[in-house]
Amino acid sequence: MFKLKIDTTRQQEFIEITNQIEKLIKESKTKDGICVIHCPHTTAGLLINEDADPAVRKDILGQLEKLIPQNNNYLHLEGNSHAHIKSSLLSSNLTLIIENFNLVLGRWQGIYFCEFDGPREREVWVKTMQT
Amino acid sequence: MFKLKIDTTRQQEFIEITNQIEKLIKESKTKDGICVIHCPHTTAGLLINEDADPAVRKDILGQLEKLIPQNNNYLHLEGNSHAHIKSSLLSSNLTLIIENFNLVLGRWQGIYFCEFDGPREREVWVKTMQT
Amino acid sequence: MFKLKIDTTRQQEFIEITNQIEKLIKESKTKDGICVIHCPHTTAGLLINEDADPAVRKDILGQLEKLIPQNNNYLHLEGNSHAHIKSSLLSSNLTLIIENFNLVLGRWQGIYFCEFDGPREREVWVKTMQT
Repeated sequence: MFKLKIDTTRQQEFIEITNQIEKLIKESKTKDGICVIHCPHTTAGLLINEDADPAVRKDILGQLEKLIPQNNNYLHLEGNSHAHIKSSLLSSNLTLIIENFNLVLGRWQGIYFCEFDGPREREVWVKTMQT
Repeated sequence: MFKLKIDTTRQQEFIEITNQIEKLIKESKTKDGICVIHCPHTTAGLLINEDADPAVRKDILGQLEKLIPQNNNYLHLEGNSHAHIKSSLLSSNLTLIIENFNLVLGRWQGIYFCEFDGPREREVWVKTMQT
Repeated sequence: MFKLKIDTTRQQEFIEITNQIEKLIKESKTKDGICVIHCPHTTAGLLINEDADPAVRKDILGQLEKLIPQNNNYLHLEGNSHAHIKSSLLSSNLTLIIENFNLVLGRWQGIYFCEFDGPREREVWVKTMQT
């Protein structure tokens, strides 16, 4: 298992990690198989979506905030219930395909670490499986 | 990796692909293992849910539209931010169990390709791993 | 494939299954690999989130109920459309990492079976893959 360190810089933001994941896959020398990406945090998540126009990520974050506002009379007293709920609606783990030593993604897809309770030092864990 | 072609015919619809996935698994001759299904698009997603009453899919699509309306002052100017957001809340990949050459699903479960920005020519990528 | 039985006791609740999953992984004698957890139902789902303060789960359930109310003029006549929609927004399957015979989770993470249409006798299916 590889551990990727991610330092987030804002309270809520999406940080692209596609290049770091691809680099880890190269280093793993997995020719053909799959790659499991796990987010070990409960106020952050993972997302695959468009990596071209940054407005797309802003719209996703903005709509999540409308649906799950930060202040909303939550029971949990740490003030970050919204972050737990948002990360519950995204993914805590992804399973991606590796072919010919490469991560296989669609033309417009990027992998994002989604911070909802930052800034913090975060990690993403990655494991490859050879066919 | 197998590529499954899907032609969607509406702007938003759920198309059942269970039979095609099962056929690919048979062709792969994977006796026992797992199957990763990847949606390479950023305005469509994957979902496992009821395949009996079609009203269930209409209710899921209808509630997603209420929560994430098509017109909502989004920043992304292509007019399909709602589709990026909806697909972010569903899955871009699924990992399913294969036993005795068969996909293992619950009695009422079907696999759906969820189009949110159609009609388009789409694909789903499938990879099997033998234990 | 292992089958884990879960008896839910309320209409909607999150039941922690981390210990049972860990026990199954020990029994499988998988030293290093992955574990696929599949929910075979269409009105229940799976979630990884905080296992410390129970208020977090109440907030997640409460906000899901605000966004997807039980009574909402749905088309499906069985009265459980809300449960299909809620489970669609969570996960029907998870893929987790196994290292040195142990499930690898973050410090605050627990695995939850999320019942939205109980009480019922439910199952979760678990398959491990050795690297």
